[in-house]
Amino acid sequence: MNAGALPSFDRRALSRALTRASRMSVDELLRTRASGAQPAPRIGITGAPGVGKSSLIARLARVRAQKAWPLAVVAVDPTSPDSCGSLLGDRIRMEDLADDPRVFVRSIPSGGTRDGLADNLPDVLSTLDAFGFAEIVVETVGVGQAEFGVRELVDVEVLLLMPGLGDSIQAMKAGILETADLIVVNKADLDGARRMALELKSTLAQRRTAAAPRIVLAKAGDDAGLLELDALLDDALREAFARRPADARRRRFARYRLQRLVARRLELAFAGLPESRFDAPPEEIYEEILATMARGHRGPGRAPGQPEEES
Amino acid sequence: MNAGALPSFDRRALSRALTRASRMSVDELLRTRASGAQPAPRIGITGAPGVGKSSLIARLARVRAQKAWPLAVVAVDPTSPDSCGSLLGDRIRMEDLADDPRVFVRSIPSGGTRDGLADNLPDVLSTLDAFGFAEIVVETVGVGQAEFGVRELVDVEVLLLMPGLGDSIQAMKAGILETADLIVVNKADLDGARRMALELKSTLAQRRTAAAPRIVLAKAGDDAGLLELDALLDDALREAFARRPADARRRRFARYRLQRLVARRLELAFAGLPESRFDAPPEEIYEEILATMARGHRGPGRAPGQPEEES
Repeated sequence: MNAGALPSFDRRALSRALTRASRMSVDELLRTRASGAQPAPRIGITGAPGVGKSSLIARLARVRAQKAWPLAVVAVDPTSPDSCGSLLGDRIRMEDLADDPRVFVRSIPSGGTRDGLADNLPDVLSTLDAFGFAEIVVETVGVGQAEFGVRELVDVEVLLLMPGLGDSIQAMKAGILETADLIVVNKADLDGARRMALELKSTLAQRRTAAAPRIVLAKAGDDAGLLELDALLDDALREAFARRPADARRRRFARYRLQRLVARRLELAFAGLPESRFDAPPEEIYEEILATMARGHRGPGRAPGQPEEES
Repeated sequence: MNAGALPSFDRRALSRALTRASRMSVDELLRTRASGAQPAPRIGITGAPGVGKSSLIARLARVRAQKAWPLAVVAVDPTSPDSCGSLLGDRIRMEDLADDPRVFVRSIPSGGTRDGLADNLPDVLSTLDAFGFAEIVVETVGVGQAEFGVRELVDVEVLLLMPGLGDSIQAMKAGILETADLIVVNKADLDGARRMALELKSTLAQRRTAAAPRIVLAKAGDDAGLLELDALLDDALREAFARRPADARRRRFARYRLQRLVARRLELAFAGLPESRFDAPPEEIYEEILATMARGHRGPGRAPGQPEEES
């Protein structure tokens, strides 16, 4: 945590570096090592569209940036032309942060990946580490499996719910409740918020073998819940760092990064096979896939969903 | 479609064959070719827990088995000790089918896979093909990405929703609405069912470039919706078969099967790496992973989540 001096990162250089990282192909990424910088503390925040993630993150970022700055917010946008409306709304709420010199906000497209996470997210985060960020908040939309993915990239995971959307049921079946470190019942001025918190508490008490996550009630315009969340995040980060020494954190992030890259490389190898190939015995196709993967990382092989290089 | 004779499949032999298929390791499966039998028409039915999938499928199976028998229902159970209650309820509803000689019901555990689909599901289905089933209904729980997975294994996909659970919103964000061929608004006697159907209709009209899926209202004890669904399924299957000739269907299923097997083989290769290995440059680990995968399919390598062999 820094104090006293003004934030020193170069916004334009950082912007360029992030654009570079987000445009690298899978094969380029396979040849790239993560920066040697120790990863900054990472907070993941996830929830369904409409639960108020962006508003809460904007307020939370201001509070946390007073202790840990520069602070970065990385928002992973589901790449769907249909959801432009809501995403635009989200980004406008985030722009409230633009006047805060201690905060940097970056939104990256998910690039059509199955689990709603951008392929290059690990490298975006490690670029932020290299620029000396003191803390990173990663916002993801809870579209199912993304929560499991992002869990491997952050130290602490916060799940946002709100009364009335059936989200608690959805969350339970998707198993997210089992992995979240903290749960925020947002829009707590709506009917049913307290009941929802109580139900969650009793469900979690039955299900979790380890300590159940703390539940916070939050709502717009009231800072009590926000400050409670802030304090609980400090505790949760402390515990996460105690549980995983620096080596273990770095390896965990590296492992996840490589796993995604290899899985994507595999998708590309499959995409290159003509349909008629699938009349062959599986073992034969398997050998061919492995051969393609071995050759692959010398080819051009841009990751699908990545924008073209600027001309 | 058969008519006249009694169903001829040997339930005990089939049961044994399915148990064998569901217990094979990834490496054994990689050495196995799908049976030469032409795959039976496959109907996928998905939806959140509580929308009434099993009851509807039990009723639908009776209706369809009058035209296409023997008919098999394969229910993929999310492997979670917490959900035993609801699953037990589902299975009990399914047991209503046990007295119907034209119907065979099998429930298989999802085995803790990320997308909620069993690794061996393709082989369970192709075992049913080899036993001469005339139609297969695959039930999956809509836990997020499973819908995308199962989409590749069936000819027609039905999404079940119900009023009040917030499912329509959930479905929209997860993109399931974009891929379903038919949508059933179940429990149509509940408030808001017609409004939900109208909302879905207008949403779909805006979003889908191809023909929007038909929406059916269904409820317990009333056969009108069920018979409408049955007729629409006939149409949808006919269209699916016209769109994809026999070769294309077989290759599509074979492709998906192999993709899952290789992905799982990759997971096993990663699981075998010690954490300290992730300090190495990514390219080096990548080469090691490929080497392990090339060796792997000669080793024992039981798939995680698979039961042990009987002793």
